[in-house]
Amino acid sequence: GQGSVALVGAGPGDPELLTLKAVRVLQSADVVLYDDLVAPAVLDVARREARKMLVGKTGYKPSCKQDDINALMVSLARQGKRVVRLKGGDPMVFGRAGEEITAARDAGLPVEVVPGITAAQGAASRLAVSLTHRDHARRLQFVTAHARDGKLPRDIDWTALADPAATTVVYMPQRTWAELAERAVAAGLDPATPAIAVFSATRPEERQVPATVATLAGALHQAVAEGATGPCLILFGHAIGEAAAFAGELEQH
Amino acid sequence: GQGSVALVGAGPGDPELLTLKAVRVLQSADVVLYDDLVAPAVLDVARREARKMLVGKTGYKPSCKQDDINALMVSLARQGKRVVRLKGGDPMVFGRAGEEITAARDAGLPVEVVPGITAAQGAASRLAVSLTHRDHARRLQFVTAHARDGKLPRDIDWTALADPAATTVVYMPQRTWAELAERAVAAGLDPATPAIAVFSATRPEERQVPATVATLAGALHQAVAEGATGPCLILFGHAIGEAAAFAGELEQH
Repeated sequence: GQGSVALVGAGPGDPELLTLKAVRVLQSADVVLYDDLVAPAVLDVARREARKMLVGKTGYKPSCKQDDINALMVSLARQGKRVVRLKGGDPMVFGRAGEEITAARDAGLPVEVVPGITAAQGAASRLAVSLTHRDHARRLQFVTAHARDGKLPRDIDWTALADPAATTVVYMPQRTWAELAERAVAAGLDPATPAIAVFSATRPEERQVPATVATLAGALHQAVAEGATGPCLILFGHAIGEAAAFAGELEQH
Repeated sequence: GQGSVALVGAGPGDPELLTLKAVRVLQSADVVLYDDLVAPAVLDVARREARKMLVGKTGYKPSCKQDDINALMVSLARQGKRVVRLKGGDPMVFGRAGEEITAARDAGLPVEVVPGITAAQGAASRLAVSLTHRDHARRLQFVTAHARDGKLPRDIDWTALADPAATTVVYMPQRTWAELAERAVAAGLDPATPAIAVFSATRPEERQVPATVATLAGALHQAVAEGATGPCLILFGHAIGEAAAFAGELEQH
């Protein structure tokens, strides 16, 4: 039969946060090319007979080059395989899906995208905090703090980040958060704005680090020293102050 | 037994985009309070014996007041019912979840949140377009074009919307899009920026209306006249120009 490519969102980690469609597609896969941010419990959902290959490409670790991933994906699909490209969170949100869709299309292969719960949504559900709470937030924005060279992206819109009526979610914040916070404050962000780091959102090892924009860099450092691990996300804005973690009434579900 | 409240994301419409957790919670519900934007096919997933009550509160139609929904939800849970508050998309993204979480907490009830695929993600998967395509977008932002009074919110950050390196998703755009586009262009947004309206994303009646920021108001008007129906979402930004709809090579899955 003809091969195909499906980009599938693995969600933030809890395998129960996979969509029914993701499960169906994973269970009919011949090959699963997965990122190092995909939780092992999610990978277990894939068809047992499927070949599973770690291709990395997210997180801070060394990984395959994007061109190599594209070439492997296309080559396997051309051999008639049903190839699933499994990505942490949602492929369409900081998932490098653009390059892979283009590569598959250029090769004349059918491409399907299955959305996933992105890390921000996983964290918000665990914090039980509305990212667009009517009293606090008119705009929700996602940014990455990690450019191709591993540094802070050069063209961040600092005014947009300083807006007191926005909720901001920072993906891949760990190496550059201190600088990002400093520059956002310089652009007018109130340093007392509630900010929280969430490690391994929705996984058993989840850890929440509530602080403020001004104090989170230190709190983050300490949490890592104390063993906080896994994918990290930072959320800030006045809506985040509604999170249970700040009220000291955090319930574990 | 003790009652409980679960806020559950119904996703954009395709019932296969429910998470496994949403299905589990829906199948153990005693009562489901649902919005008018929840697709009937999603509601069918709920436990057959569950009482299903339309409480509205999304879309443009008249609906129950938020205070009445909160009171009903708390009252049912206090009677020992497992109450599911089922919301289109993700409860934490323009879902009024904040008020309901507070009401349940204030009543001493256990609250759980199950995230859902939000409309922007459903639309992006169908358009096969990365919302954060590396060549085009550094920031992804969600705004609502519909304030409490039905008009454009007064405190929109127009500079943030005019940023050429952002992808913007406008929820509830239909009544106010023309004004929003005009003001964003006045703030510096290139009127030739690709923009697309998606009606009923991921549903059988889905309709995509590709245009530009300048021409979408007219195209939208025409699409509605031609029968486009259901929840509408507008996406704009240079990343959106990568959508298959613009290349005239749209495939239906």
